[in-house]
Amino acid sequence: MDKMKAAIFIEPGQIILGEKPVPDVGPLDALLRITTTTICGTDIHILKGEYPVQSGLTIGHEPVGIIEKLGSEVKGFQEGQRVITGAITPSGYSNASLYGCGAQCGAGTPHGWKHMGGWRFGNTIDGAQAEYLRVPDAMANLAVVPDELTDEQVLMCPDILSTGFGGAESGGIRIGDTVAIFAQGPIGLCATAGARLMGASRIFAVEAVPERAAISHKMGADHVIDFSKDDPVEMIMELTDGRGVDVSIEALGRQETFEGALRVLRPGGTLSSLGVYSSDLKIPLDAFAAGLGDNKIITTLCPGGKERMRRLLAIVKGRRVDTSALVTHHFTLDEIEAAYDLFGHQRDGVLKVAIKP
Amino acid sequence: MDKMKAAIFIEPGQIILGEKPVPDVGPLDALLRITTTTICGTDIHILKGEYPVQSGLTIGHEPVGIIEKLGSEVKGFQEGQRVITGAITPSGYSNASLYGCGAQCGAGTPHGWKHMGGWRFGNTIDGAQAEYLRVPDAMANLAVVPDELTDEQVLMCPDILSTGFGGAESGGIRIGDTVAIFAQGPIGLCATAGARLMGASRIFAVEAVPERAAISHKMGADHVIDFSKDDPVEMIMELTDGRGVDVSIEALGRQETFEGALRVLRPGGTLSSLGVYSSDLKIPLDAFAAGLGDNKIITTLCPGGKERMRRLLAIVKGRRVDTSALVTHHFTLDEIEAAYDLFGHQRDGVLKVAIKP
Amino acid sequence: MDKMKAAIFIEPGQIILGEKPVPDVGPLDALLRITTTTICGTDIHILKGEYPVQSGLTIGHEPVGIIEKLGSEVKGFQEGQRVITGAITPSGYSNASLYGCGAQCGAGTPHGWKHMGGWRFGNTIDGAQAEYLRVPDAMANLAVVPDELTDEQVLMCPDILSTGFGGAESGGIRIGDTVAIFAQGPIGLCATAGARLMGASRIFAVEAVPERAAISHKMGADHVIDFSKDDPVEMIMELTDGRGVDVSIEALGRQETFEGALRVLRPGGTLSSLGVYSSDLKIPLDAFAAGLGDNKIITTLCPGGKERMRRLLAIVKGRRVDTSALVTHHFTLDEIEAAYDLFGHQRDGVLKVAIKP
Amino acid sequence: MDKMKAAIFIEPGQIILGEKPVPDVGPLDALLRITTTTICGTDIHILKGEYPVQSGLTIGHEPVGIIEKLGSEVKGFQEGQRVITGAITPSGYSNASLYGCGAQCGAGTPHGWKHMGGWRFGNTIDGAQAEYLRVPDAMANLAVVPDELTDEQVLMCPDILSTGFGGAESGGIRIGDTVAIFAQGPIGLCATAGARLMGASRIFAVEAVPERAAISHKMGADHVIDFSKDDPVEMIMELTDGRGVDVSIEALGRQETFEGALRVLRPGGTLSSLGVYSSDLKIPLDAFAAGLGDNKIITTLCPGGKERMRRLLAIVKGRRVDTSALVTHHFTLDEIEAAYDLFGHQRDGVLKVAIKP
Repeated sequence: MDKMKAAIFIEPGQIILGEKPVPDVGPLDALLRITTTTICGTDIHILKGEYPVQSGLTIGHEPVGIIEKLGSEVKGFQEGQRVITGAITPSGYSNASLYGCGAQCGAGTPHGWKHMGGWRFGNTIDGAQAEYLRVPDAMANLAVVPDELTDEQVLMCPDILSTGFGGAESGGIRIGDTVAIFAQGPIGLCATAGARLMGASRIFAVEAVPERAAISHKMGADHVIDFSKDDPVEMIMELTDGRGVDVSIEALGRQETFEGALRVLRPGGTLSSLGVYSSDLKIPLDAFAAGLGDNKIITTLCPGGKERMRRLLAIVKGRRVDTSALVTHHFTLDEIEAAYDLFGHQRDGVLKVAIKP
Repeated sequence: MDKMKAAIFIEPGQIILGEKPVPDVGPLDALLRITTTTICGTDIHILKGEYPVQSGLTIGHEPVGIIEKLGSEVKGFQEGQRVITGAITPSGYSNASLYGCGAQCGAGTPHGWKHMGGWRFGNTIDGAQAEYLRVPDAMANLAVVPDELTDEQVLMCPDILSTGFGGAESGGIRIGDTVAIFAQGPIGLCATAGARLMGASRIFAVEAVPERAAISHKMGADHVIDFSKDDPVEMIMELTDGRGVDVSIEALGRQETFEGALRVLRPGGTLSSLGVYSSDLKIPLDAFAAGLGDNKIITTLCPGGKERMRRLLAIVKGRRVDTSALVTHHFTLDEIEAAYDLFGHQRDGVLKVAIKP
Repeated sequence: MDKMKAAIFIEPGQIILGEKPVPDVGPLDALLRITTTTICGTDIHILKGEYPVQSGLTIGHEPVGIIEKLGSEVKGFQEGQRVITGAITPSGYSNASLYGCGAQCGAGTPHGWKHMGGWRFGNTIDGAQAEYLRVPDAMANLAVVPDELTDEQVLMCPDILSTGFGGAESGGIRIGDTVAIFAQGPIGLCATAGARLMGASRIFAVEAVPERAAISHKMGADHVIDFSKDDPVEMIMELTDGRGVDVSIEALGRQETFEGALRVLRPGGTLSSLGVYSSDLKIPLDAFAAGLGDNKIITTLCPGGKERMRRLLAIVKGRRVDTSALVTHHFTLDEIEAAYDLFGHQRDGVLKVAIKP
Repeated sequence: MDKMKAAIFIEPGQIILGEKPVPDVGPLDALLRITTTTICGTDIHILKGEYPVQSGLTIGHEPVGIIEKLGSEVKGFQEGQRVITGAITPSGYSNASLYGCGAQCGAGTPHGWKHMGGWRFGNTIDGAQAEYLRVPDAMANLAVVPDELTDEQVLMCPDILSTGFGGAESGGIRIGDTVAIFAQGPIGLCATAGARLMGASRIFAVEAVPERAAISHKMGADHVIDFSKDDPVEMIMELTDGRGVDVSIEALGRQETFEGALRVLRPGGTLSSLGVYSSDLKIPLDAFAAGLGDNKIITTLCPGGKERMRRLLAIVKGRRVDTSALVTHHFTLDEIEAAYDLFGHQRDGVLKVAIKP
C-alpha cells in the first residue's frame, strides 16, 4: 500500500505532518491528487481544541487537485481532469440534499437531517491537507476547473467564496440595498464582493487592520470603518441619516459584531450571520425592537456540491471577482507546520496561504 | 363639540372610562362609529406600564364600525358602510409601505423607516375603545365587511388573525411541513390555524390550560403538549423521531418559549417569532449550532392595510377559519373597566372579549 | 433468469401484457416487487403514439411495492420495506438536482440539464406496470410507506398528487388568494386539493362531468362551473366582481383552457400550467395585456425524489387530503389491457384504476 | 391663468408643441417645473396610433424637475427641491399598491386592480413633455435627487432604468447565472446593466446595430451577437455547450425575439419579458417542452413609486451604473417636434434624447 504525507491532528495544540496510506476508492468515490490546498480559520479552531475532531484525522477541506482514480460507479468524469470540490460535500441523495439544504446533509442517516452533516472533509473523514484525498459521492461533488484558471485563482471557491457569497445571498440583497459587513477577514472580504455582485448601492465594511481595509475597498466596500477609532454602529447610522442598512453581515463570530450587525438594521432588515460563535449570544431587547421589528436573523453554512462550484468557477472565469489578493503566502506541504504557525498567529498580514504538495 | 365615551390611559395601573370630544376628520381621514371592539394583550402591557404611552390617550387598536364621515379627499368608500381597519395602519405612501413593509411605516418621516411606526391606534394616536375612532390614511386602511358576517366573526381580523397568520407566513410553511407552536393564547391559536391553512402535515402545540388545548385542536393542532407535565422539546423531538420541525412559532414572548422554539428546529428550519419580549434574549450556543445550522429567526409585527384586511375577511367568509370560539365574554363600553379586570387577570377562561358601545 | 409479466408498448395503438426477464440490480439500484400500480393519461398519449417511446418498453411510472433486492451500494433501506418512488426519479447528483430542479435532471449528462430528463420510468427505462421494477438511484428515490396506510391511499403520491400540488405550489398561492382551476381530471382535482391546502379563500373549478364536479367539491372547490352551460371566463370575472383571480391552474393541456386561465387572471396574477400540450399555443395580445400585465406563466413537471414522497405521505397520513375517491376501478395486472381500454376511453366514470400483479 | 408649452397628441401621426394652462394643484398633488425630460418608445407608439390616448393629451412620462408647488396635504417635501417621479405613479393606497404590485394600481377603483392602471402620465393624465407637470399622489411618488447628480445622470431612472432592472429582477438572476438579452435598445441596455449588477457570470446580448453593440459591452455584456450575421439561438446554445441560459430577457416586443428568448432557456429557466407586443404571440410546442420544462414566462411593467426611485438614484450616486452614454442628443422643448422626428425614425444613432424647456 502506497504512503502519502498528510497534516494530522494529534491533540489540541498539535497538528503535524505525518504519513498515511493513500486512500482506497469505493464505487462512488474519486481519488484526487492534491495540487493546491489551504488552511481555514476552522482548522485553527481544531488545532486549539475549540472544535473537536478525532485524533489521527487528516485536516483540511479546500482542495484543488487532479482526478487520480474514479470509483466503479462514477460517471461523467475522467481521470486526469483538474477539479475542485466544495468544503461541504452533500450526498445528493439525502433528504436535506433533495430539499435544497445539502450543507445540512447527514448522508447516511435515514432522515438525512443532522446539523452540519454535510461537512465531512477534515471533520468526519480525512481531509485535503495531504498528497491525496478521497472524495465521497464524487458525482455530486466534482467540478472541472477551466484550463485558463490557475489553482490559486480557484482556491477560494471550495469554502471562502462560497461562504462569503452565501452570506450575501442569505441576506437577500437586492439592487439598491445598503449593506454593512462586520469584519473583513477572508470570509468577510468575499461577503463584501458578494454584496457588490448582487447590486448593493452602498457597502460599509468594519475592519481595523489597514491591509484588510485596503483589500476591502478592492472587493467593493465604499466605506471601511476602523472600529478602533470610530463606533461602527454610530457611524453607519450617521452615514445612512438614521435609516440603517437593509442587510448586515456578521463575519467574525463574536457577540459585539453580532450585536452591531443587529443595531444597524433598518426596521424590516436582515442580519445574515456567517461567523462560527464560541459562546451563547445575547439579543438586546432594544436592538430587537422587543420582537416587533420585522427583522430576520439568518445563519449560513458554506454551500457545497458540484453545481455550486461550477457557478463559482464561472464567476471567477468571467472576471466578476478576483480573489488572488487573498493568497498572501505560499508553502509546500512539507512546510505546513510553519504555515499553521504563521496563519494561526495571523502574522505578517496573512489572509490565506497556498499549500502545494 | 360632541362628546363621546372612551377608555383612557391615565397612568400605570389605571385605564378609565372617560369622556372626550368626538374626533375631527381631516381630508384623508375617516370617522368610524365603533360597533364592536376588544382588548389586546398589548393593552394590558400598557395598563401595567410595561409599554409606555402618553397619559390621556385612548387605548385599543381592533375596530369594527360604521363609516360616520369621510374626509374631503377620500374616494372609494361611502358613509354608512360597515368596515374594519387593521391594528396597524400603514400610510401607503411611506417608503416602508412602498416596499412591502407597511407595518414599519413611519408615515410622516422623510425616510419612512421607523420601528413599529405603522402601529398608531392606541399607541401614538387615539384608539378604538371608544364610541368614535378617527382612521388616518383611510383610503389605505378601510375594508368593507361582507353583510353576511357578524361583528364577532370579524373581530379577530384587525390584529389577532393577521398576526397569527403572519407568524405562519413568515415561517414560510410549505405543504407537508411539520410545525410546532409555543403557547396557545389568541395569537398562538390563530398561528395554529394559519399553519393548518398553509398545508402543515403535522402540528404540535404547547399549552397547559385545558380550555386552550381544546380550542387548539379545533384550530388544527394534532398534538397539544402540556408543558406542566412533559418537556415540550423532548416530546417534539421524540414525536419527530429526532428530526425536529421545519418551522416553529413563538407566541408568548418569553426566553423559555423562544429557546424551546429554537431547540426543536431541524437543521435549516425557521423560528417565526410573534411574542412581545420584555427582556434581553439568550441564544444558547448549542441550540444555534454555533451559527452553522442554516437556521432563520424571523420576527413579525401584525400586517395591516386594507388589502390584508380584505384577504382575511375573504378567509372568514369562505369558512376557512372560524374564530368565534375565541370570543369568550361580552361587555358594553360602559363596563370596560370590568373587562380590563377580567382580561388582565385572565380569569374565567377568558380568551378575547367583545366590547360594544 | 426469472421471467415476469409486464405491460409492453409495441407500436401506436398497442400496449400488450407480455413477458420479460426480472431486471438485474446494479450497485445503486433497488428492485421492487410491485404490489399496486396505475395508468396515467401520459400512458394513453404513449398508446396513441402522441408521445414517442421505444417499442418493447415497459410502461408505467406510478409504483407501490416491496423492496425485493438492494444494490450493493444502497444504504438506509432494508429488503422487505414497503415503499413508493416518484414518477420522476432525480439522480440527486446531477447539476439540475443540486439546484432544486430534479425533475429536469439529465442524470448521466455532463451538464445535467436536459428537458424532462428526470422522467425515466416508462419513458427511457422500463416502467412500473409489471411484476418487478428496477429503481435507479435508489437512495434518492425510495420512500417508506407508513404501515397504517394502504396501497390505494398512497397510489396517487408518485405522480397525481405530486403534480397537482406542484401546480398549486408553482402558483405561489397565499392565504386569502382566489384561485381558478381549469379541468378536474385526477391532476386538476389534486390541484384543487393543493389550492385548498395552501390557504385559498375561494376556489373556482371548471368541469362539465357531474361525477368529477362532485369530487371537486370534496377536494375543496367552492364553485364548479360547467363549461358546457356557462362561459367560465365570464362567470369567474362576474363572481369576482371583475377583479379576476390571483392564481389560475391549467390542468388539461389545451389552447382553450390555457387561454381561459390567462383571461381570468387579475393584473399581476399567475398562470400555473400543468397540462401536457400537443400543439403550439397562442397568447392573445389582449389577454396578455400586450406584455404589460405583470403576469407570470409557470409550467411544472411532477416533482420527484424521496423527500417529496416523504412529505406527500405525511400529508396523507395526517389526513389532510384523501385521494381514495379517485380510485374508481380495480384490475389485476393480467387484466391490464382491459384497464387500458376502460381508462383510454374514459368509460364508466373512471378517474384512476388500481392494478395489482 | 398662466399658460405653458406642452407636446400634445392631436391624432395619429401628429404630436405638436402647443399651449395649455399650467395645471392646478389638488390637496395630494405636486406641481413640478420640468427641467429635463425625454421621449420613450411608447410615445412613438402613441404618435403612430398603435397605442390609443385621447386627443389633446400632453405626452411624456419621464420627468426631472423642481417642486413649484405642493398640495395642502402633502408632507415630507419642500418647494424648490429637485425631484424625479417614476413613469408609473402608484397611489400607495390601492389594493394593488398595498400588495406590492403598484404598477398595476388602478388608484380610484374600489378593488384597485386594473391592467396598467399605475401608468398615468401621458396615458390617462397630462404628461411630462411640458413646462409644468402635475404629479398625483405626490407623497408616494416624489424622490429627491442628490445635489451631486446632473439631470442627465438621473434622466433614465423614471422609466428606462426601472424597466430594464425590472427585467433582470423578474428573471430572478442569481450569482453565477448565464443570461441572454434580446435587443439592446435603451431598455435592453439597462437590462444588461441589471443582469451584470445582479451577479450574472456570463451575459449574451443580441443586437445588430454596431453603436448599440459597443454600448452593450460597456453596460456589461460579454458577447454581443449580431443577428444579421449569426443565428442567436444557435450561437447561444453553442456558447453554452448546449446547456442554454438560466434567464433570458426579451426587450423588443416581437414574436422572433420572444421565441428566441424561449428557445435558449435551459430546462427550469426563466424568460423575463419587457417588450410591448403589438400582436398575438405563438409559443411553439417544442420550445415550450410541451409544457413540461419547468419554465417561467414573466412580464414586467416599469416599477414606480418614490422608494423605487430612491433606490435607483442610490445606484447612480454609488456609480454602480452610468447611463450617460444613452443620452445621445439634446433639444429644447421648442424643438420637440424635431426630436420626435429624429427619435421616431431612429436616425443618427439616437438612443435617448434630453429635452429641456
